[in-house]
Amino acid sequence: MTQHTVEKTSLSLLGLGAMGSALGRAWLAEGHGLTVWNRTADRARPLVAEGAKQADSAAEAVAANSLVVVCLLDDTSVEEALSGADLEGRDLVNLTTGTPAQARARAEWAHERGARYLDGGIMAVPPMIGVPQTGGYVFYSGSQELFHRHRETLAVPAGTRYVGRDAGFAALHDVALLSAMYGMFAGAAHAFALIRKEDIDPASLAPLLADWLAAMAPAVHGTAGQLRSGDYTRGVVSSLAMQVAGIPTFLSTAEEQGVSQELLSPYFALMRRRLAEGRGEEDLTGVIDLLVR
Amino acid sequence: MTQHTVEKTSLSLLGLGAMGSALGRAWLAEGHGLTVWNRTADRARPLVAEGAKQADSAAEAVAANSLVVVCLLDDTSVEEALSGADLEGRDLVNLTTGTPAQARARAEWAHERGARYLDGGIMAVPPMIGVPQTGGYVFYSGSQELFHRHRETLAVPAGTRYVGRDAGFAALHDVALLSAMYGMFAGAAHAFALIRKEDIDPASLAPLLADWLAAMAPAVHGTAGQLRSGDYTRGVVSSLAMQVAGIPTFLSTAEEQGVSQELLSPYFALMRRRLAEGRGEEDLTGVIDLLVR
Repeated sequence: MTQHTVEKTSLSLLGLGAMGSALGRAWLAEGHGLTVWNRTADRARPLVAEGAKQADSAAEAVAANSLVVVCLLDDTSVEEALSGADLEGRDLVNLTTGTPAQARARAEWAHERGARYLDGGIMAVPPMIGVPQTGGYVFYSGSQELFHRHRETLAVPAGTRYVGRDAGFAALHDVALLSAMYGMFAGAAHAFALIRKEDIDPASLAPLLADWLAAMAPAVHGTAGQLRSGDYTRGVVSSLAMQVAGIPTFLSTAEEQGVSQELLSPYFALMRRRLAEGRGEEDLTGVIDLLVR
Repeated sequence: MTQHTVEKTSLSLLGLGAMGSALGRAWLAEGHGLTVWNRTADRARPLVAEGAKQADSAAEAVAANSLVVVCLLDDTSVEEALSGADLEGRDLVNLTTGTPAQARARAEWAHERGARYLDGGIMAVPPMIGVPQTGGYVFYSGSQELFHRHRETLAVPAGTRYVGRDAGFAALHDVALLSAMYGMFAGAAHAFALIRKEDIDPASLAPLLADWLAAMAPAVHGTAGQLRSGDYTRGVVSSLAMQVAGIPTFLSTAEEQGVSQELLSPYFALMRRRLAEGRGEEDLTGVIDLLVR
C-alpha cells in the first residue's frame, strides 16, 4: 500500500452499446469497480473479460452500487430498464440521448422514486472516450450535489461541464451544439457540391474550408453580445442589407454549377424577411428572433 | 537613396466602396503610386488626401497604369465602367464579387480587348485589409503570368492564393467558402434560438459553440478523402443510419423550445433520402451527391 492509493468509486452501468462499452472500458482502465447490464447479455462479454461484474437484471445492477450510470438507446428504454429497480437512495446519472423535456420528466420520475438525478449530454463519439486529449466532454445538469460527489468518477471517460440545476439543460446544450454542427456540415456539403463537376481536388478545398470555418466560428461571440444587449446593430461589419445584396451571387453560382439551393435558401429567406422588416442596418442576429415562436 | 529603396509598382484602382477604399489605403501606406476613380467622385477625397491621384474618368484611370484593379458593385458595373477604356496591354485584376460564369465571361471579354485578366475573390471584410495578422486573403484565378508579375503588389492588402488558370475558380472558391459559412451561421442561429427563452446566458453558450464548431470543422478532411475515393464508408465513426436515428431528438427539441425547424429540416431530409437509398453504412458524404444535378 502506498500513500497514493485512493479508493475508486464503484459504479453500475446500464447499456453497452458502442458508447456504453467505451465508458465502461474507461472506468475499468482506471481501476473502478464496475457492474454492467445490457438487455442483450452477450455484449457484456468484452467488459467482463476486462474485470467487470455482470448483473443478471437491471434491478440487480442498480442494487449493486449507489452510483448508477445509464446509457441506453432512448428515454423509453430507460423507463423500461429501470421500471423494476429500487432507486431509493441511488445517484442516477442518465447519459441516454434525449430532449430537454424528456430529461426533466425523467428527473421528476427519479425523484419520486427517491433517487438523485443528473442528466448528461455527451459531446464525443465512442473513440474519444477515455482519451482526454481529444477534447471530448459531457454536459451535466440536474443535482449539483450528485455532480460534486461523483465529479472525479464522471471525469474519467471525458471532461465534465455542469450547466445548471435544470435537468433539461444538459440535453439542451447538447442538441444546440449538435444542431449548429449539422448546419455547418450542410454548408460544407453545399461547398463540396459546388466543385463536384470541376477539376478541383476536394482535398485541396478541404483545408481552405476547415480554416475558414474555424476562423468564422468565433463570430458567435458577437452574436451573443448582440442578443444580450438587444442591439443587433452593435459592432456590425457587414450589415444585413449588404449581405442580402450578395445573395443572388450565391444562388446563381449554385444554379450555374447545377447544385440544389435547398440547403442555403431557408437561411437566405429569413435574411430577406428580416430586411423587409426594415432591419437592414443590423447584423444577421435578427434571424434568430424569426426562428422563435 | 538607400540600398533598401525598391521601386513600388504604380497601379490604378476603380471603385471606392468600403472594400475599394480599404485596398487603396493599404497600397498608399506601402508607398505604391495610386490613381483612383469612382463613379461618385467625392468618395475619392480621403484617398487623395493620403496621396492618390484622382482620374476624371475610368478610361483615364486605365490609361494611367498598366496594372488596373477593379472593385465595383457587380459585373454590370465593371462592363459599364470599362466600356470606354482602352484595355490593350493592360493587366486587369477584377476583385468585383460575382459568379464563376461572370468571371469566365469577363476574362473572355478582357482578352478580346487585348488585356491579361486575373479574377479575385476576397475572403476578408474591409477592416481586415492591410492587417496581415487577421488572416484575410484573396483567391486569384486566371492569368498565371499576371499573378506572378504582380504578386508582391497584390499581397500588400491581403494574402494571396492562386487557385488555377480557369478565371472562374477564384469566384467558385469564394462562393464555396462563404456558402459553408452561411450554413454554419444558420446552425448557430438555430442553437441560439433553442436557448432564447431559457435562463441561459447567450454569452455562456457562445464559447462552447465556437469551440465545438472549430473542433468539428476538420471533419471536412474526411469528407474530401471519401469524395476522392468514392468510398463513403471509409473511416466512418457515426454511420448515416445512426445519425438519422438521432434526428427525432433534434426536431422534438426544436418543437419543445418553440423554435422553427426550417433551418435544419432540409439537411435532415437529405440524410433520410440517402438512407432510404440503402446507404446506412456510409458517412454523411452521400448528401453531397444528392445536391448535384
